[in-house]
Amino acid sequence: MAPAGAAETVSVFVPSHVTSFFSVHEHEEPAKAGSRGAGLTLTDGVECTLERAPETTVEVDGAATEVAAVDHVLEAFEPSARIEIEATAPIGAGFGLSGAMALGTAIGLNAFASEARTANELARIAHVADVRAGTGLGDVVAQLRGGIPIRREPGAPPHGELDGVPGAGRVEYTTRGELSTEEIITGDVDAINGAGEAALAGFLERPSLPRLFAHAREFARDSGLLPEELAVVIEAVEEAGGEAAMGMLGRTVFTLGTGLTDAGYDARACRIDHGGARIASDGVVYYPPTAEFEA
Amino acid sequence: MAPAGAAETVSVFVPSHVTSFFSVHEHEEPAKAGSRGAGLTLTDGVECTLERAPETTVEVDGAATEVAAVDHVLEAFEPSARIEIEATAPIGAGFGLSGAMALGTAIGLNAFASEARTANELARIAHVADVRAGTGLGDVVAQLRGGIPIRREPGAPPHGELDGVPGAGRVEYTTRGELSTEEIITGDVDAINGAGEAALAGFLERPSLPRLFAHAREFARDSGLLPEELAVVIEAVEEAGGEAAMGMLGRTVFTLGTGLTDAGYDARACRIDHGGARIASDGVVYYPPTAEFEA
Repeated sequence: MAPAGAAETVSVFVPSHVTSFFSVHEHEEPAKAGSRGAGLTLTDGVECTLERAPETTVEVDGAATEVAAVDHVLEAFEPSARIEIEATAPIGAGFGLSGAMALGTAIGLNAFASEARTANELARIAHVADVRAGTGLGDVVAQLRGGIPIRREPGAPPHGELDGVPGAGRVEYTTRGELSTEEIITGDVDAINGAGEAALAGFLERPSLPRLFAHAREFARDSGLLPEELAVVIEAVEEAGGEAAMGMLGRTVFTLGTGLTDAGYDARACRIDHGGARIASDGVVYYPPTAEFEA
Repeated sequence: MAPAGAAETVSVFVPSHVTSFFSVHEHEEPAKAGSRGAGLTLTDGVECTLERAPETTVEVDGAATEVAAVDHVLEAFEPSARIEIEATAPIGAGFGLSGAMALGTAIGLNAFASEARTANELARIAHVADVRAGTGLGDVVAQLRGGIPIRREPGAPPHGELDGVPGAGRVEYTTRGELSTEEIITGDVDAINGAGEAALAGFLERPSLPRLFAHAREFARDSGLLPEELAVVIEAVEEAGGEAAMGMLGRTVFTLGTGLTDAGYDARACRIDHGGARIASDGVVYYPPTAEFEA
């Protein structure tokens, strides 16, 4: 029987992360590999619900699924659990959901583990998992922070350095399908890195929300990553007086406020997330790790 | 006239921060001075509402007030504003509200300033203000992060190093009046620092929420800071099966869940904050700084 007060289930929300611009920084140690850049975290993300179970299973939106980054996280924990992940942002469209699932799984399993870890240690495990899986380079650290994260230096804590822009508000987005993160971040990255470093340097001189979008548009163009079908949408939003940009790496356009609907597009709406990855609590206090209640 | 889309008012919420244990780290540069330790940020805190105005005024809970840390923040900004601060946690009782007011003022004024700053830069201004005023050493960096912050290294970004414990839930507290932060943190700190360093080292070995309370009780006793009237309350909560500790630096006891009410005390209830300092947005997108809309 579980000790008194022990968590048998835990629910973790992790925001999605759309990157405005980035540069790739490879390193043989995955914890030191990563990206520099900036983006938005959003209230559409993933809800990970974990329940102690004799063996570990992973379901995404109700179907048994293998997510490489989640599998790598599982290797770092001893307890087994039934893991149910619900995605409220589109999968495979540049919202960093593999990193979000990895981070949510790490925070959830920590609630069942006999050896407690800090938030930075859990983020490091999830970041390394995302890098090893080839599915992300900077989403996890951004998703731990929430808000409008700036990745000043690449890598997991304590190697990376995060900052942010104060800001809040409604965000709209529309998605036209997938781009392969792995192909792009393991391919020729010179044009991306040149454009990404220029965008970050310019942004840090005047770090505001409209500038985030202006540099994102410049980066999408200069990096060669902007598909024509998205360029058309971004232009239409700008003509309607809005702020729009491409979400890296996906066929996604995101805007502030009502930018997409003002331009006549169907769009999903959410908000800039302010909290980052968090245990969802409905009145219950979770005490990771539960094993300590035996003492 | 203000440029189109310019913010004329902005509202910022900053959580309170109760410290469980700490050590003092002095430095001639206030940005490098600070404390190491851990604590909780709470959903009771301060709401700072700023409105552009021809001259700057500061009101706390409806009365014109001088808050030294806020005055130091004002020196760093050019725009003037009417600043109304509402405190939802007790003032002067160990909730770090001077730091919260300083940080809320900095984030708010940034929305009116022609020169934008990042979140870390704003936290640095508020931290330096709190240190110069003698009212806090580590609250501001904790309040920017939110959650259950661990201050691994002292000082404002990029000097300090923050971590955290994943956790959520209800917190109750009761307050028996003030302690002078300035007297304690400028007095003989050897006993405090010995107890604080021991508590942090022990806590980092098993970083969980119950351990935060266990080390807080040990620290309060070993540092010599625990008043007898609070020791009685903490003991009563423990006897009723709860987790309680003294909030540093104030005559405050805080507990997880319903610890105080279970022990028969009147208590105020709130929750562990998960978001840290944030612009409160009710559907409006704030674009700091507004001057950029003129371009």
